[in-house]
Amino acid sequence: MGPSRQEIIRVPLGERAYDIVVGRGAIEEAGARIAALGARTVGLVTDGTVADLHAARVSADLEAHGLRVAAVVVPPGEASKSFGQLEAICDALLGAKLERGDVVLALGGGVVGDLAGFAAAILLRGIRLVQAPTTLLAQVDSSVGGKTGINTARGKNLVGAFHQPSLVLADTALLDTLPEREMKAGYAEVAKYGLIGDAGFFRWCEGHWREIFAGGPERDRAVAQSCRAKAAVVVRDEREEGDRALLNLGHTFGHALERAVAYDGARLVHGEAVAIGLALAFRFSSRLGLCPREDAERVAAHLDSVGLPTRIRDVPGAEAFSAADLLAAMGQDKKVKAGELTFILARGIGRSFVARGIDRTEVQAFLDAELARRSS
Amino acid sequence: MGPSRQEIIRVPLGERAYDIVVGRGAIEEAGARIAALGARTVGLVTDGTVADLHAARVSADLEAHGLRVAAVVVPPGEASKSFGQLEAICDALLGAKLERGDVVLALGGGVVGDLAGFAAAILLRGIRLVQAPTTLLAQVDSSVGGKTGINTARGKNLVGAFHQPSLVLADTALLDTLPEREMKAGYAEVAKYGLIGDAGFFRWCEGHWREIFAGGPERDRAVAQSCRAKAAVVVRDEREEGDRALLNLGHTFGHALERAVAYDGARLVHGEAVAIGLALAFRFSSRLGLCPREDAERVAAHLDSVGLPTRIRDVPGAEAFSAADLLAAMGQDKKVKAGELTFILARGIGRSFVARGIDRTEVQAFLDAELARRSS
Ligand SMILES: NC(=O)c1ccc[n+]([C@@H]2O[C@H](COP(=O)([O-])OP(=O)(O)OC[C@H]3O[C@@H](n4cnc5c(N)ncnc54)[C@H](O)[C@@H]3O)[C@@H](O)[C@H]2O)c1
Ligand SMILES: NC(=O)c1ccc[n+]([C@@H]2O[C@H](COP(=O)([O-])OP(=O)(O)OC[C@H]3O[C@@H](n4cnc5c(N)ncnc54)[C@H](O)[C@@H]3O)[C@@H](O)[C@H]2O)c1
Repeated sequence: MGPSRQEIIRVPLGERAYDIVVGRGAIEEAGARIAALGARTVGLVTDGTVADLHAARVSADLEAHGLRVAAVVVPPGEASKSFGQLEAICDALLGAKLERGDVVLALGGGVVGDLAGFAAAILLRGIRLVQAPTTLLAQVDSSVGGKTGINTARGKNLVGAFHQPSLVLADTALLDTLPEREMKAGYAEVAKYGLIGDAGFFRWCEGHWREIFAGGPERDRAVAQSCRAKAAVVVRDEREEGDRALLNLGHTFGHALERAVAYDGARLVHGEAVAIGLALAFRFSSRLGLCPREDAERVAAHLDSVGLPTRIRDVPGAEAFSAADLLAAMGQDKKVKAGELTFILARGIGRSFVARGIDRTEVQAFLDAELARRSS
Repeated sequence: MGPSRQEIIRVPLGERAYDIVVGRGAIEEAGARIAALGARTVGLVTDGTVADLHAARVSADLEAHGLRVAAVVVPPGEASKSFGQLEAICDALLGAKLERGDVVLALGGGVVGDLAGFAAAILLRGIRLVQAPTTLLAQVDSSVGGKTGINTARGKNLVGAFHQPSLVLADTALLDTLPEREMKAGYAEVAKYGLIGDAGFFRWCEGHWREIFAGGPERDRAVAQSCRAKAAVVVRDEREEGDRALLNLGHTFGHALERAVAYDGARLVHGEAVAIGLALAFRFSSRLGLCPREDAERVAAHLDSVGLPTRIRDVPGAEAFSAADLLAAMGQDKKVKAGELTFILARGIGRSFVARGIDRTEVQAFLDAELARRSS
């Protein structure tokens, strides 16, 4: 249970460098490590579900290390990534007299991480942030890399900041309470790292996904490997001006689907959208003659065996979608440059690349073909 | 009228370096210079007063250079530095489909600059900002240095971001329409640069303030010299971790007074609060035996001859203030470190320094003495 079970991954971002602590029990180091950062007050932001399950223990540990805790609990769910909740958090933490040397601790999934991270970025023009991700998605993706933000009526994550954490505590034991659907959703991002640039890791995932879900040492290994993969990309391109776009494999299609269901998590959670997006990106690559058809089929087969959706028709209510609507939804993405679409495509498993200036008519024809499958 | 009348000051902040163009007619370069930045759409943010006086001309110039203009007009006044207006600006500019390569143009005083600058900092996680300051205060202070932000119920500027502009266009001719009270308020910041570190500039100001107000070449010189002074400090300490605090000369007292009138601009505008704060900082320094009494008197005499307030009793309703309340109001400042007060004090005109760990009882006794003067 002790520190010996944990792996520490360094993200070497110069003066913004930080450690990711991965393993069962990592959260038990929160008090000691945050006290070591020199903070006096901790703005603990979490959501209602995580608060009930895990917050009391974390709070007690922080207090045992002489830290004052100011807790803010937001409602669970994507809708909390709003200006309203952002203001409420800022107000509560300023009311608790957080000072510049203090720390915001984001204890929760990607929603809490993005929202609390953004609050940390703008409170007193920026105070330190510690991420304690409690979903698989947050542990392997959102807590690492410094992207924070909220949604607006115009789209997801359109307002935010780059604000690197000072520390990430990825306690894989916290995932034991995660609903299976959320676990699967996060798994899509794990598989993504293999698909982007590490065919060996994807193969290992195909062989070990059951142990990752069950919580054996394979889970720690998968989280650590994912963090390393993400950190490597972030270090190459912190502000997403080039290479970092690779991490969007599956996301351009995925975001369009999330928009098509108006971010209704009951119909589609983010990771499910990514899973469909990954399958679509490979099928689109294959259709363009870039990637062997077998690779596209292997991607879909693996996601399918895990229980993830891989087709647009898997989305409840997909009958109502049109290629034109999905295309329009893509156009509103931040990834648009001067009106052209940028996709992450693949030459094969582990061989993804940034494809700029993709022709809209190609995409439309592909989506039409995919949508036609829904009646098959 | 041409570029020959303008002075260009470079702020050498590495990859965030930018130019400040100072002089009559600088705003006429907006279209050409923003087009040269590669933007296609300009999010023009201004307030109602400035919109009526100057925005049409600027818009026309932008459009003449092939730029699409998406204009957002906020109500004039400090109350616009709010989460509500921030959200409204983000929403309007996202609705106008601003992209990453586009630019926010802040045309207005410090309120517009801080608010629109903050919007630029968080829109799509940061797009470029051009500051076109239209008040003296904004030209010599708020438009340079990258501090942006809004107010909350807990205090001023407690939420914001460091976001350097890509360009500052300080057109001194725009000040011709500025009400005299606002001109004076901005002048307090001009004098401040002399008081911080340039006794010669302060002496020059004593001799030339009338020409600065009248709009002669002395105005351009005063603005340019102020920008140089501010830029020098910002370059030494971009994130306000040390030296930059010098710019807060007069501001710790000033902010407390602004809070005491609940930011009611009818009673006290920011620059007036700063003028009183400057006089108080010198009198406090003199009381502590740090600074010759003659210097403190000279500071007050100059501000007084310009028509600026220099005593707490000059604030309408000052009868209701207490030293304890003012002290409490200071304690909530961002400049608090671990509960101690930091003041900028002076050893004489042009010889200011950061004084940390100032004893609260000393401050309280000084404020009591100052408040006792109100009945004299
Ligand atoms: N910043 C980034 O780089 C980045 C990357 C990817 C995704 N994201 C964002 O992340 C968000 C999605 O994150 P998410 O999938 O973690 O969603 P989430 O934060 O909403 O968590 C999903 C659900 O699981 C619950 N939960 C969290 N931890 C739990 C635990 N240990 N046990 C039981 N229940 C638990 C939550 O209360 C919530 O209901 C999206 O808003 C997305 O935009 C950000
Ligand atoms: N970011 C920084 O570093 C920094 C530094 C100092 C002050 N500030 C902020 O600046 C703000 C104060 O700025 P301000 O004094 O410019 O106030 P302001 O922006 O409210 O402008 C003052 C008034 O002048 C009007 N006005 C502006 N330009 C005009 C013109 N050319 N002709 C006629 N009227 C004009 C405005 O409509 C407003 O009513 C405060 O919010 C303060 O916190 C920021």
